[in-house]
Amino acid sequence: MPSYTGPVDDLQFVIHDVLRITEQNVPAYEELDRDFTAAILGEAAKISSEVIAPLNVVGDKEGVHLENGVVRTPTGFKKAFDQLRDGGWTGLDCDPEYGGQGMPYILTVATGEMFSAANQAFMMYPGLTHGAYSAIHVHGTDAQKQMFLPKMVSCEWTGTMNLTEPQCGTDLGLMRTKAEPRDDGSYLITGQKIFISAGDHDMADNVIHLVLAKIPGGPDGIKGVSLFIVPKLMVNEDGSLGDRNALSVGKIEEKMGIHGNATCVMNYDGATGYLLGEAHKGMRAMFTMMNEARLGVGMQGLSQAVAAYQNAVIYANDRLQGRAVTGTENPEGPADPIIVHPDVRRMLMDQKSFIEGARAFGLWGGTLIDKARSMGDDEAEGLISLLTPVLKGFLTDQGYDMTVQAQQVYGGHGYIEEWGMSQFTRDARIAMIYEGANGVQALDLVGRKLSAKGGKPAMTLFAILKDFCKDNAEDEEIAKHFIEPLKGASKQLQEAAMYFMQNGMKNPNHALAGSYDFMHLFGHVCLGYMWAQMAIAAKAKLAEGTGDATFYETKITTGRYYMARRLPATAMHLQRILSGADTVMALDAANF
Amino acid sequence: MPSYTGPVDDLQFVIHDVLRITEQNVPAYEELDRDFTAAILGEAAKISSEVIAPLNVVGDKEGVHLENGVVRTPTGFKKAFDQLRDGGWTGLDCDPEYGGQGMPYILTVATGEMFSAANQAFMMYPGLTHGAYSAIHVHGTDAQKQMFLPKMVSCEWTGTMNLTEPQCGTDLGLMRTKAEPRDDGSYLITGQKIFISAGDHDMADNVIHLVLAKIPGGPDGIKGVSLFIVPKLMVNEDGSLGDRNALSVGKIEEKMGIHGNATCVMNYDGATGYLLGEAHKGMRAMFTMMNEARLGVGMQGLSQAVAAYQNAVIYANDRLQGRAVTGTENPEGPADPIIVHPDVRRMLMDQKSFIEGARAFGLWGGTLIDKARSMGDDEAEGLISLLTPVLKGFLTDQGYDMTVQAQQVYGGHGYIEEWGMSQFTRDARIAMIYEGANGVQALDLVGRKLSAKGGKPAMTLFAILKDFCKDNAEDEEIAKHFIEPLKGASKQLQEAAMYFMQNGMKNPNHALAGSYDFMHLFGHVCLGYMWAQMAIAAKAKLAEGTGDATFYETKITTGRYYMARRLPATAMHLQRILSGADTVMALDAANF
Repeated sequence: MPSYTGPVDDLQFVIHDVLRITEQNVPAYEELDRDFTAAILGEAAKISSEVIAPLNVVGDKEGVHLENGVVRTPTGFKKAFDQLRDGGWTGLDCDPEYGGQGMPYILTVATGEMFSAANQAFMMYPGLTHGAYSAIHVHGTDAQKQMFLPKMVSCEWTGTMNLTEPQCGTDLGLMRTKAEPRDDGSYLITGQKIFISAGDHDMADNVIHLVLAKIPGGPDGIKGVSLFIVPKLMVNEDGSLGDRNALSVGKIEEKMGIHGNATCVMNYDGATGYLLGEAHKGMRAMFTMMNEARLGVGMQGLSQAVAAYQNAVIYANDRLQGRAVTGTENPEGPADPIIVHPDVRRMLMDQKSFIEGARAFGLWGGTLIDKARSMGDDEAEGLISLLTPVLKGFLTDQGYDMTVQAQQVYGGHGYIEEWGMSQFTRDARIAMIYEGANGVQALDLVGRKLSAKGGKPAMTLFAILKDFCKDNAEDEEIAKHFIEPLKGASKQLQEAAMYFMQNGMKNPNHALAGSYDFMHLFGHVCLGYMWAQMAIAAKAKLAEGTGDATFYETKITTGRYYMARRLPATAMHLQRILSGADTVMALDAANF
Repeated sequence: MPSYTGPVDDLQFVIHDVLRITEQNVPAYEELDRDFTAAILGEAAKISSEVIAPLNVVGDKEGVHLENGVVRTPTGFKKAFDQLRDGGWTGLDCDPEYGGQGMPYILTVATGEMFSAANQAFMMYPGLTHGAYSAIHVHGTDAQKQMFLPKMVSCEWTGTMNLTEPQCGTDLGLMRTKAEPRDDGSYLITGQKIFISAGDHDMADNVIHLVLAKIPGGPDGIKGVSLFIVPKLMVNEDGSLGDRNALSVGKIEEKMGIHGNATCVMNYDGATGYLLGEAHKGMRAMFTMMNEARLGVGMQGLSQAVAAYQNAVIYANDRLQGRAVTGTENPEGPADPIIVHPDVRRMLMDQKSFIEGARAFGLWGGTLIDKARSMGDDEAEGLISLLTPVLKGFLTDQGYDMTVQAQQVYGGHGYIEEWGMSQFTRDARIAMIYEGANGVQALDLVGRKLSAKGGKPAMTLFAILKDFCKDNAEDEEIAKHFIEPLKGASKQLQEAAMYFMQNGMKNPNHALAGSYDFMHLFGHVCLGYMWAQMAIAAKAKLAEGTGDATFYETKITTGRYYMARRLPATAMHLQRILSGADTVMALDAANF
């Protein structure tokens, strides 16, 4: 069975040596000193490896079952969920007014990586709850907040997001679920929702569904969509649970992976719902939590890559097969461990250099969310909105590819379920799809975010990159191996953006045909930027002479690998982008 | 449920308009005129879509089961296998002396693509048998051939290949299975083999295992390995079946995919075996059929991409979601079909341009095998040996990626088993691993094939590419869109080969660290070469004014997409290769 170890040292390095969060002027950051975060991350790592990870294979094998209308979760899930609750992990960054710990969001990003790496399907139950909590926290009335949030912070009640219907996924304007107003101010919700993650289960007393629906007579399309709170069990005024609401699980979907999570068809048959936020402004209410939700999914992509990589390293050190071409390295044994072979190392270095760069990228995103959230920092808000589709799309695409690489290290054993490597790829696959398929992320990036606020966030990022390259040109080693390649890749990113501006006006297809490659070009630049920062931080540590020199040297070597071997993908993406839409759009639909 | 349609027109185009096989001076090719191959391919397409494809999902869902020592195949498999047998498809290119049809190998490649696309797990039963047939055909004594081949050609008996053991996969020198000689000339086979595809089942009267084992006292390592014929049921002198041999199925592996095929642990407990070929020359016997087997697996990679693509096209035309950014295209409907969206088209064009290029590449490989096999053509033998790791590694890697793309077109529905798209990726995944993992293919390419025969095959290929570019420089459109990019990519391929020669001598890791990227660079060049040929052939057809103009115009457009959007990957691969082994090998194994 695969194992998992929380990468506490790596997280600490990024948080303290690279992002230097205690030196940033962000509320509550000054309390996050090295010892404090070490304690939190260490405890999260312990729960991840000892409590949650051992249930990952169990969840995959047993799956969830619908029995007499109730979803049964796999053996051990409930007990582990209790431990997560009891430790206060479900409300780590939630409002203390409702029982949360009030920690900065960056800690949720850091611990979330570990929790998801240990068991993605399991962590989706509290994960979805957190999303629903955020929506109610921002848009709910005081009464709604009092009624629902304390129980959701503690995950005594869990939450869901109900958007998709059979005929509408990306295009929510096609929605048919309706919400008919009643005299008491509540609504009657009727319709069918599909792909509802954590839609029902036996680990909580109640499930609070957030449901998008249309109030009859409202505007057509997406502008007529409103958001409703629809509890599984009605909640009495005193907070106690009442009758069952008129909703049910239609079925559980059979999926490629995340078998431990109940992906439900939800039927609403005149269920009682409460308007959340303003009528017809449901999409706006959804959007407020989108940056967080999408960063969270990006971290899931990373997390599966981490879990798969750790096991691939163990296997590559254990499995004896062949001899190093440069001379035997394990003369006592019948063969050398396969980690001696260059192509096995290529696979491991691809994974390692992605993982550590992506981790830094995600944590940077966490600081931007903290700044936007607790300080109303416009620049941070603009930047994280720009980066969100990249964090989601790039990290999940690449994260998936890395799980495939890790599986490949195992050869035939990687294909056998017994070794657990197949599960990482099967589970990781969903993150490229849900919370907006990655093609939709690319569309959001190029069609919306790049030109948002007159292009200011994009200009800000380009300026950050430029200044960073200028400010770090002096150290010859850093300049040669990090700054020069980053500078080149940044220019390619800007050239692509310029191409979109110049050609997208004439024909928007010229921009959209390159959107996916732009998202990947963008992601590579961001990881290059993170690696340059990590190398500089590591070098500073080495100069100081404190800490584990091998750790810092390894960082620099891994970063050099990224810059030499992964970053060159940017030129390919640019070339594709510059080829425009002609060959993409030329064929009649009938000729595919 | 997914559907499948055999791409007969595309196969005909490659066979007759591009490869022009009847004009080639290859025995039996002159009989393969357009009508003849149309009849054969049409019939194979019919069986594929009507008989075999409908069992694909059945096989995935039901899987195989070990009941009282016998493997039960999924519902319908046996009947379909009978139809395949009755049609003579299992012996299409086999020796007529043993009941085969004696057709050229290229027809096995063409029909094999369709059969595998319809149901990869099912086709592995006759596929493995064909491999075992080939080994016995080349290395068996007359008596062995008379005893086994007729029944194997007809697939009344099926075959397997037993190489892997728990402690040995790529490194077969670590093998422990032993073969002790008996007085009657037979051997006692003892040991355990794993990952034995089609290891047992209920669709044939007997299973003929080809087993690699070591004769005690022989040379150490790989040089002491011999190949044995080990029938499940003993065969009497009159050809009738006798007692059960001392072998058994230990268990069936649970796998990520190809659930319809029985991947068995095989236990040999003093089973009777017959030496095939010379003692201690077992690897040589295996190698004789390796080009065919590996091309076959490459075609599996392609085949899954084809099946997935066809369904993605249907879905993209059916699914209504959003509006074309350039203006509504389906004003009658609530939304436009998603094929109007540039990023959906990008995914479909990626798939289409890969598939058609890969098909031509595979069929070209088929002609080289025919020339090598029936004419003893040294140049063809050298070329196909060089191209084999590319055909296997590149086509399965890219084929897998394309199934992932096709799945992505479906959004959330792609992740649900109900739509069948997950199965294509899960099934396609194995082809990157078995018959030599793709990293091993890359090692074979760079460590062995590139310098084989003093580098003559590689020089031959480079000359072919150079001459082709020179000979086709006149047509301005072809030159601009096809020849120029191909010329550039070919130069990059040669530059990479040159780098390996110059640096691999000093340190072989410099070559091996780039081997995987070289395989992909090589594959892209080959597909570019195929696309250039297809474009030229299509243009000639358009000039002739015969046939379906839309078909030929679509070929040219698709080819232009490949050259503009896919071929640029070569520069990235070259850059990685030229970065050498330093960053790949720098870390201590302990620091991963």
